[in-house]
Amino acid sequence: MNVSSDPGTAINSLDLPGRADMHAARARIAPHAHITPVLSSRGINALAGAELHFKAENLQRVGAFKFRGACNAVFSLANDEASHGVITHSSGNHAAALALAARLRGVTARIVMPDNAPDVKKAAVVAYGGQIEFCKPTEKAREETVERLRESTPYALVHPFNDRRIIAGQATATAELLEQVPGLDAVITPVGGGGLLSGAGLAARGSGVAVFGAEPANADDAARSLAAGRIIPVEHPDTVADGLRTSLGPLTFALIQRDVRSILTVGEDDIIAAMRLLWERLKVVVEPSGAVPLAALMANGIPSGARRIGVILSGGNVDLKSLPWQ
Amino acid sequence: MNVSSDPGTAINSLDLPGRADMHAARARIAPHAHITPVLSSRGINALAGAELHFKAENLQRVGAFKFRGACNAVFSLANDEASHGVITHSSGNHAAALALAARLRGVTARIVMPDNAPDVKKAAVVAYGGQIEFCKPTEKAREETVERLRESTPYALVHPFNDRRIIAGQATATAELLEQVPGLDAVITPVGGGGLLSGAGLAARGSGVAVFGAEPANADDAARSLAAGRIIPVEHPDTVADGLRTSLGPLTFALIQRDVRSILTVGEDDIIAAMRLLWERLKVVVEPSGAVPLAALMANGIPSGARRIGVILSGGNVDLKSLPWQ
Repeated sequence: MNVSSDPGTAINSLDLPGRADMHAARARIAPHAHITPVLSSRGINALAGAELHFKAENLQRVGAFKFRGACNAVFSLANDEASHGVITHSSGNHAAALALAARLRGVTARIVMPDNAPDVKKAAVVAYGGQIEFCKPTEKAREETVERLRESTPYALVHPFNDRRIIAGQATATAELLEQVPGLDAVITPVGGGGLLSGAGLAARGSGVAVFGAEPANADDAARSLAAGRIIPVEHPDTVADGLRTSLGPLTFALIQRDVRSILTVGEDDIIAAMRLLWERLKVVVEPSGAVPLAALMANGIPSGARRIGVILSGGNVDLKSLPWQ
Repeated sequence: MNVSSDPGTAINSLDLPGRADMHAARARIAPHAHITPVLSSRGINALAGAELHFKAENLQRVGAFKFRGACNAVFSLANDEASHGVITHSSGNHAAALALAARLRGVTARIVMPDNAPDVKKAAVVAYGGQIEFCKPTEKAREETVERLRESTPYALVHPFNDRRIIAGQATATAELLEQVPGLDAVITPVGGGGLLSGAGLAARGSGVAVFGAEPANADDAARSLAAGRIIPVEHPDTVADGLRTSLGPLTFALIQRDVRSILTVGEDDIIAAMRLLWERLKVVVEPSGAVPLAALMANGIPSGARRIGVILSGGNVDLKSLPWQ
């Protein structure tokens, strides 16, 4: 399903989350999620030529903003829906996030993962109590495996991004940031499937804060989709930013079309350099995807009119044995 | 100069800093130093068997608590003392900290460094505007070089740890932590020259919070010195914890004798494992010295009666190209 190039028609036909959903998500996840700190570095500001405020979602539970959406989705379920457990297909941070959220609610999490997923990702899911079901590493196999499992047990499906509860949950990261640092001119987040970015747009809507997305040039489906006015999925993206290899879904695309100023793209070397700069100067462990916004700002220049910029550091899950600058 | 084994006599003959000095330091450095966040991880707590609250001094300016003491010392100087500039000998974080503090005050910083100091340490001093004077890599050459430079210009000497202004400044890290996390049973810090640990003792004095030090077994001068009742310097320590290779000075030894419960020691493999655990679970870049307290707690067990423990993550300056687990 693609969204029409007429956003008015498209949006009216979709069940988009609103700001009330975001406020409800904030209250719902408050007992479980961290209010993550906002960090800054004079050295990075001098290099970037702007005042950057980094929202450290790498310090969120499971090491990524993904916990916000997963937690909101799982705790949104009615008792009878939740009772059978939840299911998703993911080889990334959403898998671990859903496993933890389910454990906190006391229900089962079935995680469909491709059989070639990295050991560290499998271990994270198992550590949070998730039950892994392996499948062939194709989108078709993932979806079929989910459907097969749901035939025997009515697990509640929680898609990684194309889900109004997920988007409302991810929006809480930006909502917090806007309160923690008043007077921002802009917010920039990475964009893969678009949950974090569409949530940022929702959180900033009506505030006058411009919202930007950033993605690898090698996985630039969001930039292409916005330019074309329809979703153009990226095929076999080759990028170090493993969290940004997915393409937009109808809900996230519609919100991004409505609320996001533009998408910046950046090359692989710049992503790795920005990641290293964050480790060296902010002293935090950020995964490649989380460094993409800083990389994009430094490579493209600061958007005009943006002096104080909020940057979401989306996650910090990385294999410390194999760092991309080595 | 060694301190007598009779602490009463020793302490009376020394010009030790008091709590008023610490309070003054806090006000003096407030415009310049960060109030660093306190981080925690359920996963680490489960592994350690205690509730650990990590004071993230790796997020302090120059990436280490050393900025607190250096800033306090430089801003303590009378105008006429400061006008000639400051000097120290150090190849570590104190060198960069003094350079930055001097720049903030608008005075010169001369840093005597051994000519074999790592490039990354030299670069940090230069980046903060310090003027490096190289010398042979011996304690004697360092001190002679400082004295030679002071013959031509009356630079104010700021020793890395055996200085009441430095100790009062480092004490502010623990003073902040005790306010940020009420109800701690204990605080543990690394101990090299003893500025941070003696400051912790000063900050916790009279509060009922037990203070512990932690050091590498391969650089266990503090444990030996406390046991012997006199300073026993360590010769050529071989430890990955490069910040903890120095030995106690008379001021820090006297305060540690008075205020610190005991010193825990730990081996190299445990230090590296704890460092990696902090990177993986807390998602922060911590240098080996900063991981020594966690390593010591996990290797020695939690001290009896200590359930809620504050841990000072002393710094985050590390060569990302060469990590000890690789």
